[in-house]
Amino acid sequence: MFRRWIALLLPCSMLVAAGQPTTPAPSHIPTYTSDGRLLPPSDYREWFYLTSGLDMSYTPRVANSEGMSMFDNVFVAPEAYRAFLKTGTWPDKTMLVLESRGAESHISINKAGRSQGQDVMGVEVHLKDESRGGWAFYAFDNAVPAKMIPKEASCYSCHQQHAAVDTTFVQFYPTLLPIAMRMKTLSDSYLKEEVKDGK
Amino acid sequence: MFRRWIALLLPCSMLVAAGQPTTPAPSHIPTYTSDGRLLPPSDYREWFYLTSGLDMSYTPRVANSEGMSMFDNVFVAPEAYRAFLKTGTWPDKTMLVLESRGAESHISINKAGRSQGQDVMGVEVHLKDESRGGWAFYAFDNAVPAKMIPKEASCYSCHQQHAAVDTTFVQFYPTLLPIAMRMKTLSDSYLKEEVKDGK
Repeated sequence: MFRRWIALLLPCSMLVAAGQPTTPAPSHIPTYTSDGRLLPPSDYREWFYLTSGLDMSYTPRVANSEGMSMFDNVFVAPEAYRAFLKTGTWPDKTMLVLESRGAESHISINKAGRSQGQDVMGVEVHLKDESRGGWAFYAFDNAVPAKMIPKEASCYSCHQQHAAVDTTFVQFYPTLLPIAMRMKTLSDSYLKEEVKDGK
Repeated sequence: MFRRWIALLLPCSMLVAAGQPTTPAPSHIPTYTSDGRLLPPSDYREWFYLTSGLDMSYTPRVANSEGMSMFDNVFVAPEAYRAFLKTGTWPDKTMLVLESRGAESHISINKAGRSQGQDVMGVEVHLKDESRGGWAFYAFDNAVPAKMIPKEASCYSCHQQHAAVDTTFVQFYPTLLPIAMRMKTLSDSYLKEEVKDGK
């Protein structure tokens, strides 16, 4: 999911038109400008945390060819999380945020492994809005409202083909995957891939 | 912080006496049994997320000599987080939770890097409770209330000597370190180490 988003959204983010900074959205409810751009979620660090990955990639190589190492942290709006706990899937208006941060070595007294740095390398949103055609991706450049990434982008087809629940990569959310398994909300395509992989 | 807690608390956790499972604490307020054991925080995954590390260690070696790779996720109770944003330090009753999870490779369509697994390898709490002598560590074995780790354990002296703010490793919390810097709440010992390291 992480590296998928990154790998697919970095080129996609070239499509994000610049605009005037706007007051960030104050809540978990998606808020759009009059021309349909999504306001960046201002308070996602106070949402519920789902997981982190380090240098994940959906191609068999080191994620970042420039030798850069990154953590990806995923957050979800609390209302959507609580709905998932009850139903095993996502309600309308669900917002997932993928935050990318540099992975650092030898910070302070840390002598091995990686810690997270202060620089946010990217913020992307995966938003389910039935009134606007269902799930959509947005990539933010600082606090500027973002245009929806066009549905032809490969991120959509990849999530459709490989994501465990409702086009989201719940297979990487350790507290939610067991719920989806119990509630039998795993997608057919994901279940077929797991069988194929002998899992 | 992470690997520090792990490295120091794994031996310390040998001190945690077994006991009968108890209903987990329902809130962010520390709750003790009549014999002074801390109830495990049941809902910490719904607290505010601070950071994650991968295989961090405070000794110059691979963190886990058995070749095991682990993520550490840190959460803090929302009230304490909001107080820190205002003051640059922690109020009484602050609870920080360190959750350790296995780091997995080649899960689903991920071809590189690491993702987080479902198995929780450890849950530890760092709690500031002035009515009980200040900051204390607890290591939980499943949902069993935990005895305080004795103050003679090296985790205490290490946090005292190296932690950036009020014996906590804020140097690894990317959203809070800038606040502590601005509010000048960094510890003298941390500042001296940073100068010594030429930072």
